[in-house]
Amino acid sequence: MERLVVIGGDAAGMSAASQARKRRGPDDLSIVAFERGRATSYSACGIPYWIAGTVGTEAELISRSPEQHRANGIDVRTRHEVVGIDLGARTVAVRDLEGGTDLTEPFDSLVYAAGSVPMRPPVPGIDAAGVYGVQVLDDGADLIRELDSGDVRRVVVIGGGYIGLEIAEACRIRELEVTVVDLSATPVGTFDPDIGTFIADAVRGLGIELVLGDGVASIETDPAGRAVAVHTASGRALPCDLVVLGLGVRPNVALARDAGIPVGSSGGLVVDRRMRSPVDGVWSAGDCVESVHRLSGQRVVVALGTHANKQGRVAGINIGGGYATFPGVIGTAVTKVCDLEVARTGLSMKEADAAGYRYVTAHVDSTTRAGYFPGAKPIRVKLLAEQRSGRLLGAQVVGREGAAKRIDVFATAIWNEMSVDEILSLDLSYAPPFAPVWDPVLIAARKAFEAVEADVRS
Amino acid sequence: MERLVVIGGDAAGMSAASQARKRRGPDDLSIVAFERGRATSYSACGIPYWIAGTVGTEAELISRSPEQHRANGIDVRTRHEVVGIDLGARTVAVRDLEGGTDLTEPFDSLVYAAGSVPMRPPVPGIDAAGVYGVQVLDDGADLIRELDSGDVRRVVVIGGGYIGLEIAEACRIRELEVTVVDLSATPVGTFDPDIGTFIADAVRGLGIELVLGDGVASIETDPAGRAVAVHTASGRALPCDLVVLGLGVRPNVALARDAGIPVGSSGGLVVDRRMRSPVDGVWSAGDCVESVHRLSGQRVVVALGTHANKQGRVAGINIGGGYATFPGVIGTAVTKVCDLEVARTGLSMKEADAAGYRYVTAHVDSTTRAGYFPGAKPIRVKLLAEQRSGRLLGAQVVGREGAAKRIDVFATAIWNEMSVDEILSLDLSYAPPFAPVWDPVLIAARKAFEAVEADVRS
Repeated sequence: MERLVVIGGDAAGMSAASQARKRRGPDDLSIVAFERGRATSYSACGIPYWIAGTVGTEAELISRSPEQHRANGIDVRTRHEVVGIDLGARTVAVRDLEGGTDLTEPFDSLVYAAGSVPMRPPVPGIDAAGVYGVQVLDDGADLIRELDSGDVRRVVVIGGGYIGLEIAEACRIRELEVTVVDLSATPVGTFDPDIGTFIADAVRGLGIELVLGDGVASIETDPAGRAVAVHTASGRALPCDLVVLGLGVRPNVALARDAGIPVGSSGGLVVDRRMRSPVDGVWSAGDCVESVHRLSGQRVVVALGTHANKQGRVAGINIGGGYATFPGVIGTAVTKVCDLEVARTGLSMKEADAAGYRYVTAHVDSTTRAGYFPGAKPIRVKLLAEQRSGRLLGAQVVGREGAAKRIDVFATAIWNEMSVDEILSLDLSYAPPFAPVWDPVLIAARKAFEAVEADVRS
Repeated sequence: MERLVVIGGDAAGMSAASQARKRRGPDDLSIVAFERGRATSYSACGIPYWIAGTVGTEAELISRSPEQHRANGIDVRTRHEVVGIDLGARTVAVRDLEGGTDLTEPFDSLVYAAGSVPMRPPVPGIDAAGVYGVQVLDDGADLIRELDSGDVRRVVVIGGGYIGLEIAEACRIRELEVTVVDLSATPVGTFDPDIGTFIADAVRGLGIELVLGDGVASIETDPAGRAVAVHTASGRALPCDLVVLGLGVRPNVALARDAGIPVGSSGGLVVDRRMRSPVDGVWSAGDCVESVHRLSGQRVVVALGTHANKQGRVAGINIGGGYATFPGVIGTAVTKVCDLEVARTGLSMKEADAAGYRYVTAHVDSTTRAGYFPGAKPIRVKLLAEQRSGRLLGAQVVGREGAAKRIDVFATAIWNEMSVDEILSLDLSYAPPFAPVWDPVLIAARKAFEAVEADVRS
């Protein structure tokens, strides 16, 4: 009987456990999964919507409970934190957070899926009461408790990335005063600034104050040690009753690193395409691993539920004796600010520059349906195409309803290394309620092709 | 000075003319375009929505008027019908439908873009008054005039394809009694029957009567020669005040064939990838040409505005001295019945059988957003994957808002000859307002992959 231990009970860990169990019965493989929190297999991405009240209860965010996993032959231990890994002895040291006792669990195979931790700027006051990260379900519950208390009127969100803006919007829906501070000139710095401008407008349209191009210098606390103001690098004081960290996350690899499991230059754990660590019998998946970016060729960490699920599945199939791979990422992401949809895939200009590509850009403003069709909404598409080859390097889409999901066509095109003139020939669906006769995707490809042509001639 | 004559002033013809003009000035190339109707560059696909009143006026359907084309250096003659082509003399014979006079126009190059004509079953009464095809803008105007007269209460639509259903829905929006007759067991026979069932339910949900698996035997007329009932092959009599033909269209090639321009076995004009007819100096584009189906390898005729625009553009660029190709179609289509969205790409089961493929199928029922997110709507995806190779051969999607446009991801995947396990790895966009953490596209690919695996083992 082989023993599998899983560290982390969310998407990556439990997908791995489930897939391994599917292929190998309990007589062949025992599976124990340790999870620090109370819940398993939940949607961390849904937490902002739970805070906003758009999603009614915590339970709705849980796709599979510990009980369901146990019924499936996986020994899940919630409120159990793994505090040490001994690769020589092949054991993990575990703390029972409720009982307070420690235990040691032996393993033959290990899945390290400890996720990520919120980035915390190293500024005075960052550990004060009233400063929250939003990472796990319990963070959401804590934040909701604070907001429900009625004592919070002003919220400062540090970081204007996806999570920061989602939390900011959630707080606005709760009719709080919200300020977002971000170092970039436009929010969600992974978009080019010209697209970011649309996002900034939509955020301000919600009544959220944006403090851009400015960092956090310190968090001021009251005598009781609670955050009362955020001071920015430029010297602004932003009074507040609550601070939320929205700076993104970093891989939670401390335990692995301490045990000698290799960490890559990206900060994530090193894995191959089958999600194997270089250490025999050790697998990893989810927010804590690095992935190959298929365009830049570099190792990157992308904390996204969709990757965590896929990677966990891949690890589990391989542990179960099958064969599966995770062939990398191309940086696809989507978010919504009020009714503005924004999405990206591939490389932004900054990223393309860093990767050494030479490229042209093209913009197009169109509509989501035939222009004459009721409900047609504006959509802007920006493309980056490699000089000469015309290979699509990146796409950014911003618009109203029906705009953002078009990014998936570009993602599929980039995945297949299509050039913009090939994309222009694609047989995409057309009918007036769904698209203009030239879908915005095709018009953008046409414009980008013209830019490639003009560049070659120049 | 070279002389270009264009036959047909809608999407294909005027795209060709515009692109040629863009690359060659009036001193180098004269362009004369003859159009039988009053309008140029209009959306025939929008006519059903104009009939329904969803689109207010005819003008909204026109993307570029004759005057605009003339200002662009294209000599457009509306209400001029080309009645003969003399390839030896390099002239076309033209009838001025207003003036009643005939003229002869010489050409060096010719673009044949005469579009299509509605299919008319060869049954008694088919030419009676009150029987309408819906093909050109004037057909829409005529039909609207009839419906506005107040004399029409009962409409029979012959043919339950895309156009038939769109017209049927338009008539229901006008609160008429509508019956649709179709030979197939489910409407829109290009979908597999299991998907067609959803369409049938949606059509009936609109209060439209469906007579399926039955053909039209004759149209009964009153003493004045006006249609008063449709008699079906099975013997049913369907009383009506108006009959609309929704059987689809066939290429309008009579003039070309008479002149000796080759017609393919599909019934469409033969063209190469640059839209050149085998006859020197003759080009063709739009509903009247045949295209290569990239999966079946066969020549097919697909009458769709999106193809007409692309093909016209390609012809025009080539005439203008550039280089462009139209590399074929894969059968992508989308339509809407009330709030039900249905889309397809690649091959249906019947088509895959005919093309000699061996395949497995997979279905998935999911939601358009995260299950817990407000506004999440059901979506069903059906995939056909080739046995062993797992290559995606076809996809059909049915669902509510946000469902159908996902077909474009499958279309892009099929275009690139992706296998379903490759699709499963695609970096598609995810956030709760836009997709479950496993997008329905990915779940469907996963299920199809499992079906391919199981088939190999069996």
